[in-house]
Amino acid sequence: MMYVTRRVEFSASHFYHNLRLSPEENQRIFGKCNNPHGHGHNYVLDVTVAGEVDATTGMVIDVKELKKLLEREVLEIVDHRFLNKEVPAFATKIPTSENVAVQIWDWLAPKLARGKLYRIRLYETPDLFVDYYGA
Amino acid sequence: MMYVTRRVEFSASHFYHNLRLSPEENQRIFGKCNNPHGHGHNYVLDVTVAGEVDATTGMVIDVKELKKLLEREVLEIVDHRFLNKEVPAFATKIPTSENVAVQIWDWLAPKLARGKLYRIRLYETPDLFVDYYGA
Amino acid sequence: MMYVTRRVEFSASHFYHNLRLSPEENQRIFGKCNNPHGHGHNYVLDVTVAGEVDATTGMVIDVKELKKLLEREVLEIVDHRFLNKEVPAFATKIPTSENVAVQIWDWLAPKLARGKLYRIRLYETPDLFVDYYGA
Amino acid sequence: MMYVTRRVEFSASHFYHNLRLSPEENQRIFGKCNNPHGHGHNYVLDVTVAGEVDATTGMVIDVKELKKLLEREVLEIVDHRFLNKEVPAFATKIPTSENVAVQIWDWLAPKLARGKLYRIRLYETPDLFVDYYGA
Amino acid sequence: MMYVTRRVEFSASHFYHNLRLSPEENQRIFGKCNNPHGHGHNYVLDVTVAGEVDATTGMVIDVKELKKLLEREVLEIVDHRFLNKEVPAFATKIPTSENVAVQIWDWLAPKLARGKLYRIRLYETPDLFVDYYGA
Amino acid sequence: MMYVTRRVEFSASHFYHNLRLSPEENQRIFGKCNNPHGHGHNYVLDVTVAGEVDATTGMVIDVKELKKLLEREVLEIVDHRFLNKEVPAFATKIPTSENVAVQIWDWLAPKLARGKLYRIRLYETPDLFVDYYGA
Repeated sequence: MMYVTRRVEFSASHFYHNLRLSPEENQRIFGKCNNPHGHGHNYVLDVTVAGEVDATTGMVIDVKELKKLLEREVLEIVDHRFLNKEVPAFATKIPTSENVAVQIWDWLAPKLARGKLYRIRLYETPDLFVDYYGA
Repeated sequence: MMYVTRRVEFSASHFYHNLRLSPEENQRIFGKCNNPHGHGHNYVLDVTVAGEVDATTGMVIDVKELKKLLEREVLEIVDHRFLNKEVPAFATKIPTSENVAVQIWDWLAPKLARGKLYRIRLYETPDLFVDYYGA
Repeated sequence: MMYVTRRVEFSASHFYHNLRLSPEENQRIFGKCNNPHGHGHNYVLDVTVAGEVDATTGMVIDVKELKKLLEREVLEIVDHRFLNKEVPAFATKIPTSENVAVQIWDWLAPKLARGKLYRIRLYETPDLFVDYYGA
Repeated sequence: MMYVTRRVEFSASHFYHNLRLSPEENQRIFGKCNNPHGHGHNYVLDVTVAGEVDATTGMVIDVKELKKLLEREVLEIVDHRFLNKEVPAFATKIPTSENVAVQIWDWLAPKLARGKLYRIRLYETPDLFVDYYGA
Repeated sequence: MMYVTRRVEFSASHFYHNLRLSPEENQRIFGKCNNPHGHGHNYVLDVTVAGEVDATTGMVIDVKELKKLLEREVLEIVDHRFLNKEVPAFATKIPTSENVAVQIWDWLAPKLARGKLYRIRLYETPDLFVDYYGA
Repeated sequence: MMYVTRRVEFSASHFYHNLRLSPEENQRIFGKCNNPHGHGHNYVLDVTVAGEVDATTGMVIDVKELKKLLEREVLEIVDHRFLNKEVPAFATKIPTSENVAVQIWDWLAPKLARGKLYRIRLYETPDLFVDYYGA
């Protein structure tokens, strides 16, 4: 098995708010991230695909195709967007890095033409990232 | 002369819109950045102070004091904020990197206890930054 | 399962010396690192916590709490310290990156309020790091 | 178990071409990378060795020795080379990142004096890398 | 004045050879870089444009336009190329970082629609770069 | 004129103490950095040489020679050293980044065979650096 990782970036804004909690609880739990105007990040997304190396091409997957897939299935939807207000998946689900990573997995996993989705790594800042390997 | 640079980071969201232009012109000029919901960045701010090396301390400036100044005069105001809606300086001024850099200069220059503000470098993304050396 | 990683940094000095070896053997094995005056690094520490995503918060762990824990249990003890002389854990144990990583694991693992400690990654320089997943 | 990773870099050029395919198929599959004059990269190679921490040295492996091994068994062969034309292993095998990673594994695995080769990570660019854990 | 810098990257291969020198002199001066098969780099190019901030847009220059210009006037010509053999400008001029930087200046300076070209910074590796401010 | 910058790194430890000040004043001014056991950094040093591009070589300076010079005149003296105790230049002069940068300038400026020393940039951490252009 070989694991191929492609990095892409997007800029988005978000805020954290749970509609079933009181304003005071939201503020206590989420602090500055509860600001409803939102704040933003340059997210860095590392998508890892696992597979056998194809004997004809010497590759697991065509990374140009992978990049187009990431642009169409992820970046078109989230880049330069306010996640809570403009991305239906986050209308009710809080767009924490954890939830965004799971959502990106769900968008990508069924669309891969070759190989298997192995890991979604999402950096919210250079000092904070999450890894998700599927359910 | 010696030049000392301290890096800090903040996350904020913004959008680009000129109230004196039509919606079509705003869209044509600013493209994706015209989205009124805003989008966000992890801004990286490099503040450079110029001065003589103090013979007693071997330093131009106490960088712990400089960091506190940056936190009080810049980060408290912009971090985790929607610049257009929450920072009065950008109520009418478009929060482009250029304008944000000038504004940070104007906030900091009169407050330095030692040395002279030499340069504001502001990264909007790792691939795009502006430098401002004062008027 | 979701894996959340928080990065922090500290500056410390150390040297390598095994009291049960002769000076010649210490010099042969450890080379420049045997210098008893010590030398230093900007260590980069990536702490990974594994856990379920909490349905209420959308998070595995409150990363602000995690950062406070890292400051209290690790950084307060090692930052700006000479590890061999000022950190009792390294009075007899050589503060190699391997041993420092195990020690950080032992400090942190019993203190996590939520989730499970999954990995300690410690960079001694940008070109050299160790990973420890517990005993 | 402890995992120690040493990073080294090399500059090389390559192109992608499968002799059993027609020129048109090569062009369709490999695009710009099919250019027979070659193009180049600053490859970044992260070699991870797994092992027990030695009680005498506090180390899994002497990283100075590991670096010498990497220089002798890998860098001497590939650095500043046109992989297709100057490295016999790639005379017929296409020097994709996947194939180069496998080749580096095969060069290194039998030569390690201590510990076991755990992973070869090879960055072709900062945004694209492969991981190989052996057959 | 405000200075705006946009970073782009390209991969190319090159070698160093002066036709008026003997093979021995070429080898002595250029060492490994004299290998006629070439070797490659992931070049990083930082292009800085200086100008006044436009009152209508809050920008010195439309960075999307700048990026298109860089793609058309630089990347189309050098990316995935063997500079000595495929870029006429380097048929006789040795493609050192210094000469490549001057050439990029000469390609770009007459084409800027707004602002003035201020600096070309070209990284050959992360540890080696040149700066050129025009003749 | 062309400006060529070579980056090198070294690890050293230091502490800040002014012998003419009381212990209390030293503690107040230097805080954690006053710890006499020292603490350490992975310093990053960017040395910039300015000069004309040589018509024969296409280079300002042979960067392999420059690197050897940096190793001999700087790294041999400071790498893996406790600056206060092992480098005579810092026996009385406090090894702040400012003073270390000036000292490196003084070591290098008279030794350059070609070009002129233009700038010493010294990073104490990734978030803090000084620039010195000579007296």
